[in-house]
Amino acid sequence: MCRWAAWIGKPIFLEEIISRPDHSLIAQSRRAEECKTAINADGFGVAWYAHRAEPGLYRDVHPAWSDSNLAALAGQVRSPLFLVHVRASTGSAISRNNCHPFAVGRWSFMHNGQVGGFDQCRKLADMAIPDDLYGDRRGATDSEALFLRSIGYGLDKAPIAAMERAVMEMQKLSERFGSTPHLRCSAAYSDGQQLYAVRYASDDCAPTLYYRHCPKRCGYMVVSEPLDEMRESWQEVPQGRVLTFGATGVTSAPFLPDASRRAGGMVSTQYAT
Amino acid sequence: MCRWAAWIGKPIFLEEIISRPDHSLIAQSRRAEECKTAINADGFGVAWYAHRAEPGLYRDVHPAWSDSNLAALAGQVRSPLFLVHVRASTGSAISRNNCHPFAVGRWSFMHNGQVGGFDQCRKLADMAIPDDLYGDRRGATDSEALFLRSIGYGLDKAPIAAMERAVMEMQKLSERFGSTPHLRCSAAYSDGQQLYAVRYASDDCAPTLYYRHCPKRCGYMVVSEPLDEMRESWQEVPQGRVLTFGATGVTSAPFLPDASRRAGGMVSTQYAT
Amino acid sequence: MCRWAAWIGKPIFLEEIISRPDHSLIAQSRRAEECKTAINADGFGVAWYAHRAEPGLYRDVHPAWSDSNLAALAGQVRSPLFLVHVRASTGSAISRNNCHPFAVGRWSFMHNGQVGGFDQCRKLADMAIPDDLYGDRRGATDSEALFLRSIGYGLDKAPIAAMERAVMEMQKLSERFGSTPHLRCSAAYSDGQQLYAVRYASDDCAPTLYYRHCPKRCGYMVVSEPLDEMRESWQEVPQGRVLTFGATGVTSAPFLPDASRRAGGMVSTQYAT
Amino acid sequence: MCRWAAWIGKPIFLEEIISRPDHSLIAQSRRAEECKTAINADGFGVAWYAHRAEPGLYRDVHPAWSDSNLAALAGQVRSPLFLVHVRASTGSAISRNNCHPFAVGRWSFMHNGQVGGFDQCRKLADMAIPDDLYGDRRGATDSEALFLRSIGYGLDKAPIAAMERAVMEMQKLSERFGSTPHLRCSAAYSDGQQLYAVRYASDDCAPTLYYRHCPKRCGYMVVSEPLDEMRESWQEVPQGRVLTFGATGVTSAPFLPDASRRAGGMVSTQYAT
Repeated sequence: MCRWAAWIGKPIFLEEIISRPDHSLIAQSRRAEECKTAINADGFGVAWYAHRAEPGLYRDVHPAWSDSNLAALAGQVRSPLFLVHVRASTGSAISRNNCHPFAVGRWSFMHNGQVGGFDQCRKLADMAIPDDLYGDRRGATDSEALFLRSIGYGLDKAPIAAMERAVMEMQKLSERFGSTPHLRCSAAYSDGQQLYAVRYASDDCAPTLYYRHCPKRCGYMVVSEPLDEMRESWQEVPQGRVLTFGATGVTSAPFLPDASRRAGGMVSTQYAT
Repeated sequence: MCRWAAWIGKPIFLEEIISRPDHSLIAQSRRAEECKTAINADGFGVAWYAHRAEPGLYRDVHPAWSDSNLAALAGQVRSPLFLVHVRASTGSAISRNNCHPFAVGRWSFMHNGQVGGFDQCRKLADMAIPDDLYGDRRGATDSEALFLRSIGYGLDKAPIAAMERAVMEMQKLSERFGSTPHLRCSAAYSDGQQLYAVRYASDDCAPTLYYRHCPKRCGYMVVSEPLDEMRESWQEVPQGRVLTFGATGVTSAPFLPDASRRAGGMVSTQYAT
Repeated sequence: MCRWAAWIGKPIFLEEIISRPDHSLIAQSRRAEECKTAINADGFGVAWYAHRAEPGLYRDVHPAWSDSNLAALAGQVRSPLFLVHVRASTGSAISRNNCHPFAVGRWSFMHNGQVGGFDQCRKLADMAIPDDLYGDRRGATDSEALFLRSIGYGLDKAPIAAMERAVMEMQKLSERFGSTPHLRCSAAYSDGQQLYAVRYASDDCAPTLYYRHCPKRCGYMVVSEPLDEMRESWQEVPQGRVLTFGATGVTSAPFLPDASRRAGGMVSTQYAT
Repeated sequence: MCRWAAWIGKPIFLEEIISRPDHSLIAQSRRAEECKTAINADGFGVAWYAHRAEPGLYRDVHPAWSDSNLAALAGQVRSPLFLVHVRASTGSAISRNNCHPFAVGRWSFMHNGQVGGFDQCRKLADMAIPDDLYGDRRGATDSEALFLRSIGYGLDKAPIAAMERAVMEMQKLSERFGSTPHLRCSAAYSDGQQLYAVRYASDDCAPTLYYRHCPKRCGYMVVSEPLDEMRESWQEVPQGRVLTFGATGVTSAPFLPDASRRAGGMVSTQYAT
C-alpha cells in the first residue's frame, strides 16, 4: 500500500524525514502502523528540488532500510522541497520504473492507494495518456498513469483542477472496467514551488494523510503516517480535501473530482504560518 | 544492438552456449565482432525449456560477464531447447522487463535489431497489442511489442505467417511515424517444440544470422554471431529467410512480411540432419 | 535472524519448498512466526545439487517474495537435494556475498543464528581461516567464517566432528572477545550426498529446527520453521543434536562442541525411513 | 583497470566530470583510451564533500552509463571536492563493497592499478589492517586494504608519508607472495580539505595521471585520462610523484615508498594557481 512523506520549507537534510525520526519513513518501510501492508519493501524513491527547476530522482527496488546509497544521499543532500516514498506493490512488477515518485519536467508525484482492478483497464488508461507524454510512460503502475493524465489536463495552469479531472477519469475507468474499491488516493505532488497533498477515495476509505507545521525548521512535513508519537502535533486531513503548501503557508480546499466541483467555485481556508 | 544464441537438440548444459565456447555469448557481451555495438552490457537473459511446457525465464540488468548467478545457472541447468541474449539498449530503459528473451505461455522470443524511430510510434504499437495480451506488456521495447503482436496474429497456429504479419505491421508503423532504418530483425522464437529463426530487414541490412549442425551433441546452434573461429562450420542464413528447427531437422523458407508472401505459396528446403 | 529449509530425497521442484506450501519459505520471508525477526528480506539464496558434484548457487539481495528470477528457477529446476535460505541481517552488509547458502567445492552451508559480538572478533575469525581457503572468504558474515573453519577442520572426513570443532572455536572467540549470546545455531550443510542439520546454542536458546518425512515424495524436508499448519507431522529436533539424512534414512546424534564430546563416543539413533 | 577523476575548487555540479565532457568518465566507462581495459563496467562510485566533514558515498555495480540514479545525482549535487571512479575488476567480485571510492571517517580514496598476485597475499594484507579499522574492511580488494593500511599509518598526521608506507608494505607483500607487476598505482585521496594524487609503480609502468587548472571554474580537475581532446591543457604527472591540491594551489613532491624517502627530506615544487 505504500507510505510517503514530504517536506517544504527551509532546506533540511533529507534524513530529517527519511531516517532520523522515531517512526521515520525507513521505520515505516519495516513496520507501518496505519496501512494494510505493514511492510513496504518493494522499492523506494526520493524526488528533491535543489539547484534546478527539475527535481533529482533517485529510486531503487531494494527495501529502503538496507540501501547504503539512500543513507548517503539522505545524510548529505539538503533541500527545501522533497518527496520520499516507500512502496508495497499493488500488482505491478518490482522495477525502478514502477517506484515512486515519478517526475516529468519540473513536476513530481507520489501516491498511496490504487485504481481498483487496474489490470483490466491499464490499456485504456495508457491510451488516454497524451501522445506527447507517452514517452514518459515507462512503467505499468496506475500511479504513473494518473500522474501523466493530470499533466495532460494542465497541471501547470490548474494544479488542482487538473488532478481532479485525472482522478475522476481513472475512477470512471475502474467503475466501468475494474473493481472495487475504485479509487483510493493519498498523494503529493509539486512543481518545485508549491506542494500539493490530496486525500480522496471513491468509497470514503481514503488512505490517511497528515501534516505538521515545524516552526523551528520553518516548514511543513506532510505525511501518510506521523513520523513520531507526538500525535497532537499532527493535523489529520479529512477526506475529500486538497492542501496547498507554499511560501505563504497552507490553504485547504475541497477536492471534488466529480463534475459539480468544476462547475462551482473553490472553497479555501488559509492557515497562518 | 544485442547478440543472441539458441540451442535445439539433445539436452546440453546452458554453458555450452553461454560461456564455454571461445567466442561465447559472454565473450560477445564484452566484445562482439559483427555488430555495431561491440559492448552488449545492458542486461541479459535466458529462456530454457525443461520439465514444463512454459520456459523458465532468467533475466537481469547486469553485464552477463559479471553475473555469478548466470554462471551458476549455466553450469547446472541442462535443456534441449533454450534461448540466450545479451543486450545493448537501442533506447528503452535498463530494466529486467526490457531484457530479452520475452516469454508468454509456452512461447519465448528474442530479437536483435530495431523498429526505426520506435519512440515516435510506441503508443500506436502498444495500442495494437490485443487486449487479452496487454497484461504481458511489461516493458517498453519494440521487441516485446513485436512479440506480443505476433502472438495476437496466431503464433500458435501459424508461427511463420503470424510473425510476418507482425513484422510488417511494425515496419509500416515505422514507415509512417518512425525513421529509417524501418525494420531490422534477426530473431529467434520457440514454443518449446520447434525453434524458429528469422533474418529480415526493410533495407536489406539485416543483422547477421548463422547456424551449425552439431552431430556429436545431436542438435543445432543458432546464433547472431559464430561462437568460435571455425567459420566454415557455420552456415550463414541469407536475408529474407526463416528457418524452422525441429525433430526432423531444419527447413528454410522465404520470410516475406509483405502481402505477396501470404498470397503465394511457401518455398521450403529440407536440410538433412 | 533468518529462515531456511532443505530437501533430500527423490528429485522435486524447488518450488515445493520455496513457494508452494502454505507457509513456504517465501511466506516466511514476509512473516515468520518462530523467530525474532518476522521479516527476512535482506536477501535469499538457493544451493541445489543436480548433474554435478558441486552445487549450483543462486543468491541475491532482494526480498525473496519479489524476485521473478527465483520464481522461475523454483518452477523449473528439480533437485534431489537443495538448501534454501532467506536472510535477516545480524549486522553485516546487504551483499550477495553475505547471503546464504555458502558453497565451497561440493559443500554447501546455511545458518540461522549468530556468533555474539562478531564484530569484535571478526578479524580473529578471519585469521583462523586456513590459508588455502581464504580465497573463499568473500563476505563478512559469522556464518561464512564458521563454514570455512569447519572445512578446514576436515568436513570431508568427519562432517560432524569438524563442525563441532568449528562451532566451539567460534563460541570461544565470542566468549573471549564478543558478547552474549555467544553462539546460536540452527544450520544445515551437505556434500551433495548427505544432509546434516544441527541445533545448538551456548545458552540453550537455539533457534528452532524441525523435519518431516514425506513418504509420497520419498524424502525429508528439514526446516527452521514448519512449512504448513500440520504441526503433528513435523518432528522438532531437540537442542544439542545433529541429524544426518541419507539414502538409508535419518540418524540423530548428540552435537557436543566441547572437548568432552570428542573424548567420548558417539551416540546415535537410527530412525526408520 | 579502472578510470577515475576528481575535482577540487569552487563547487560545481558532479556532472561536470561525470557526464558532460566529451570524454567524460561515463564515456571512459564505455571506451577508455589509455588503459588496458577499454571497458570499465564493473561498477562505479562517487564520494563527494558538501555540508559535512565525512563525504557522501554512492556506489553501485551497474555500468555507470546506464544508471539513472547516477545521472540524477550528477545533475543535482554540487560539491567543491569529489572523487568519481568507474571500475574494471582485477579479480575480486562485483559487489558494492568492492567499488571505489572507499570512505572511512572524513577520508576517501580511489585507485587505478593493482597489487600483483593479491589473491596470494590477501590474508596477510587483511591481517595487517589495524584492529580498530577492521570493521571498515568490507570487501576483498587490494585497493581497500591499501587505503585502510594508510589510515593505520597515520594519514591524518602525515598524508603522504602514511601512503608511502602503505604502498611499500603492499609492494613487499607482493614481492614475497604475489606476482609481477608488484605494484601499480594511480590514486587519489582526500580528507575533504585537500586532494592528493599519486602516480607510482614498482616497475615504472604506472597508470597515467593528469591534471588541469580550470581558472573559470576556479579549481583543478585531476584524472587518470583527459576528459577531452585539448591535450595541451592537461599536465601529465610523471611517475614517482605526489601532488597536493589545496586552497593555495598545487604542490608536487617525490613519492618514494622505499626507506630512503623517509630518511631524507621532502622536495616540493609550488605551482602558481
